[in-house]
This record gives sequence, C-alpha cells and structure tokens, in this order.
Amino acid sequence: MKVLVTTVPFAEKDIRPLQALKQAGADVVINPLGRKLQESDLVNLISEFDILIAGTEPITQKVIDRAECLKLISRVGIGLDSVDLEAARKAEIAVSYTPDAPSPAVAELTIGLMIDLLRAVNVSNLRMHRSQWYRYFGCRLSEATIGVIGLGRIGSKVISHLAGFQCKRIMANDLNPDLPIPCHPSCEVEFVDKEKIYTEADIISLHVPLTSRTKNLITNDEISLMRPGTFLINTSRGGIINELDLYRALDSGHLGGAAIDVFDQEPYSGDLSKLDNCLLTAHMGSMSVDCRTQMEIEASEDACRFIGGESLRFPVPEAEYQNQI
Amino acid sequence: MKVLVTTVPFAEKDIRPLQALKQAGADVVINPLGRKLQESDLVNLISEFDILIAGTEPITQKVIDRAECLKLISRVGIGLDSVDLEAARKAEIAVSYTPDAPSPAVAELTIGLMIDLLRAVNVSNLRMHRSQWYRYFGCRLSEATIGVIGLGRIGSKVISHLAGFQCKRIMANDLNPDLPIPCHPSCEVEFVDKEKIYTEADIISLHVPLTSRTKNLITNDEISLMRPGTFLINTSRGGIINELDLYRALDSGHLGGAAIDVFDQEPYSGDLSKLDNCLLTAHMGSMSVDCRTQMEIEASEDACRFIGGESLRFPVPEAEYQNQI
Repeated sequence: MKVLVTTVPFAEKDIRPLQALKQAGADVVINPLGRKLQESDLVNLISEFDILIAGTEPITQKVIDRAECLKLISRVGIGLDSVDLEAARKAEIAVSYTPDAPSPAVAELTIGLMIDLLRAVNVSNLRMHRSQWYRYFGCRLSEATIGVIGLGRIGSKVISHLAGFQCKRIMANDLNPDLPIPCHPSCEVEFVDKEKIYTEADIISLHVPLTSRTKNLITNDEISLMRPGTFLINTSRGGIINELDLYRALDSGHLGGAAIDVFDQEPYSGDLSKLDNCLLTAHMGSMSVDCRTQMEIEASEDACRFIGGESLRFPVPEAEYQNQI
Repeated sequence: MKVLVTTVPFAEKDIRPLQALKQAGADVVINPLGRKLQESDLVNLISEFDILIAGTEPITQKVIDRAECLKLISRVGIGLDSVDLEAARKAEIAVSYTPDAPSPAVAELTIGLMIDLLRAVNVSNLRMHRSQWYRYFGCRLSEATIGVIGLGRIGSKVISHLAGFQCKRIMANDLNPDLPIPCHPSCEVEFVDKEKIYTEADIISLHVPLTSRTKNLITNDEISLMRPGTFLINTSRGGIINELDLYRALDSGHLGGAAIDVFDQEPYSGDLSKLDNCLLTAHMGSMSVDCRTQMEIEASEDACRFIGGESLRFPVPEAEYQNQI
C-alpha cells in the first residue's frame, strides 16, 4: 500500500515508526514540501495514496474528493478539528488517532508556562536580551487561583502535576468530564461553571478540543469578565481564543499576559509577536522526544494493522464525529 | 533610632514593614538613589545610621569603618555574601537575616526554569518575537535526570515541588544537608557527589550560598565533565558559575542552555544577553509579592525588636560566620 506521511518532522529522532511501516510492506512517501501542507498541496498530492499519516493540515471535503484510493487517515495527535470526519465516513475512509500520547508533554509544558507568566520570566528574558534589567513582582503558583477549562487527559494531568505545590485554590470546568476530577493534597478542586473561572481565576488554562462549541470560546465578552491582570494559556488549538480580541486585551494591559502555543494560522506571523506580555511558542505542546515518538509509533502501528487486515487500536470514537456536527 | 533601608523597592506592595518601623519610633530613610548601592554610596550614606535594613549591596570593612553609629544589620534575604560578617562582629554590630522567607518563591521559579530550558520555551519565545517560527523537540521533566546541588531550604523545596511529576531520576548533593533528603513518590533521591551530577544529569540546578568554597564552583573544568546538551540553572548567587566560562560553553553549544537569575554585577549588562540559549531574569528568585513582603516584615520586625531591647528572632548563626573564613 502507498502511505503518505504529511506530518513533519517524522521519524527524525527515532526511526522505529518508519521501520514499522516498511516492515509492513508500505511504500512510504514523507511530506515532500517539508512544511505544514495547505489544502491545495494535499489536493495535488493525495490521489494515489491508500493511507495518510497526518499532521494538522486541513483534510477537507475537497481533499477527500481527490483521495480516490484513500482508505485510512491515521492522525499523529489527538485533535480532529483538521479532519472532516463526516466527509471521511461518507467516503468509507477509516480514521484513527493517538489520544493518549501527546498529553504528558502538553501538561508539563503548561506548568512551565504558568510559572513563566505568574513570574514574568518571559518578559524579563526578552528585555534582558535587549540589555534592560527588568524586575517584576510576581505571584507564586501556590498563591494563585488556578482555573482549568477542560478536564480530559491533559487538563487532569495539569492538576496532577500541581500536587507538589501547596495550591490554595484550583477551579475546573468541563462539559462532560471523561475522567474523575483529580484530587489535590492541599485544596479541593472546585468544579464550577466557566463564568466563575473567568471572574475569579488569576490564571486560566484551556484544555479543550476545537469544535463548533469551543470555536471563539474566549472573545472580548469573556475577557471583559476577567479581572485586570489575569493570565491566559492556550496549548489546545488556535481559534479557541479569538486572536484579535486577545491582542487588544494584552495591548491595553487588561490581561496581565498570555502564553499561546497554537494559532489560527501556523506557522504564525501575526501581531502578537509585537507584545512582550505574550509568551509565544511554536505549537510545541506535544514536542517532547518521548511523546512525539510515541505518537508516531501509535499512528504508524495503526497503519500497519490496517495493512495487515487487523482492527485498529485507536479508531476515532463516535462521540468525536458527533462533536463536529 | 535612625534606620537606613537600602533594599529597593521597600514596602511598595505592602506598607506593613514601614508601619512597624515607624510605630517602633524609628526615623526611617529609604535608599535615596533608588537602585542597588555601590560600596562608595554606602560609605557616603552610612555614618549617622543606627540600623541598616540591607539588600545585597556590599557591606565591607570600609563601609563598617564609616558606620560609627551602626548597631544592627538586618538583611532582607538569606544570602550573607555581601556582608563582611567578621568586620561586623569586631565592630560589635549584630547581624540578622530572613533565612526562610525567600525559599518558596525561589523554589517555584526553579521548576518553571527547568521546564523552560528542557522545552526551549525561552528560545522559541525570543524567536517568535522576531517573527521566526521556531519548533524544538524537548525532553520532559519526568524523563530528565535532574541534579540538585545544595539541599537547604530551597533545594529541598525544589525536589518537593517535583512530587506531581513522575520523575525517573533525581540526584542531589550537599556538603552538610541541614534537612533530611526529601522523598519523591516515583524515584528515590540519590545522594551523590557533585562529579556524578556533572557527568550524568540532564539539568543541574544550584542552591548553595556564595562562600569561599562555592565561588567559581562551576568553571570550564566542571562544564567539560558535563555531557553535550546539559542545562544549568543558577538562582543562588552570581559568582558560583564563572560567567566567562558559561558564555563560552553556551556559545559553543556544549551546554544546551542555561537559566541565570543572578550575576557577578547587578544590574547585569554582559554578553550572556547575546545568546538565545541563555534564559536571563533580573534577580527575581525571591520576587513574589508574598515572599518579598514576608522578607521585609521579618527584617523590619527584627529591627523593631532591637529598638525595643528584645533579642533578635533571626540572628545570623555562628556557622555562617565560619563559612566566610
């Protein structure tokens, strides 16, 4: 079978995912453009391939219309906002993903971003690199009121990582928690509505998928509920926070700062990079060597199972199809 | 009694330290230069004051020679490298400090710096602010071999904060641990010699005072024992890592990165600011509002006790005098 791997880099730190595909007899082509593909790139490339090992590029109706041979989309990652699941289903294309593998890396990064923002590490580092001595009175994580929106694999793990800090107040929200609310040794995790988080948290971290319900979850309406100086973190998906509204709230100083790892358009080249109080990273949430390798292995293994006629280990569950409608 | 407060800012976020001094009848002068004082500044200012509430400015033999009225130095902080303790003793000047108050803020910051370095958050943020999309494959804290040098109040707390991460390996060293070695839920903290930390750790964090034994603790000799890509953190005191050797090891790429909060000369204006892989902050370790307030309150309260003829709560212990010899 012909396999197109669009996610890059692939098998760069660990060769096993590629070895597995080759051993299964796959004829593998790795993204010839070496960057995140546009819809038009994929339209041009896809027609002859049976299996797509996909990154976050848009797998739209138009792409699927051209994907005459395609039988499996195996997503390297958890987010499915880039895949038109209904279009895939109608074309009888199976879809699998790697829901567990990225979460440890994203959750750890989030803790680092929380401390960065609360202590203005990012701002001081930027200014010190301009030879300015910039000192800032911050707030300790243990003293802050922490708000976590989304209590799935990642949000729950964020709270677990806080176990070693004597936190005073953690609030959490989820539409339908798929895991029990984690316990914290020094405070009870309060399950509250989102508005309470907006109005009372010092730092708010988003851990929700991008769906029609979470698109523009945070706009000026929500930001205006937040107290001056609130910090926002998005390591989930671009589009969940409205970027223009975020820019204005950071520029005016209403928000104390934000840490943004994901963007409407990636690679990002917008105005947030003009703001010192916006910590920017390049969609690096899942980019630890161990988690990335695990994601590639799981996605490749499901492709190998498919080639061998076995059932998939991580088929996308029905709830994800419903989420997109 | 006349009190000179040299540490700045003072009583800015919380007025209580200043109120306490005034209620005790003190005639308070706050640093008229509004910046860290040089020895010569202090020589010019000190002569008429009975009590000095001190930052990290050099309180040398020369200063003490001019301090004809001085009876108490109350340090806002834990480090005593800036105070010539023997000279103070000979001049019958008592010295107190605030050994506990800064440690929560420094320890929390250290965790943030660890995650920053391991995931290149600092590098990505710098480059994203130059409109470069910079992605980096990092290592999770839980996967890294962590080395902690110095197991006093701060080093122990750093290890405690790691409780919520499934760490695989933590090594620690101290000349004479003053606290029991903390337990970690997922690995035993190995008590090892420093050389083992240099050769085997992925990330090394220093939590030792600056004394004659720790001055230039990390030079090219120690750095050359470290594996390529090792990360170094110093939130203790400038001078413990040789700055020129550090610069060379970062510039050559032998070290993966460093996070430096303390410098030989502060405010810092040296060449480390030319290196993207050196995360720089402006001596902000203790600068959380709660810890800074606690430090100022404790230092002021000891001054008030002294004015009232009571014994000091935090006199500098004999071991600190011996450390300086």
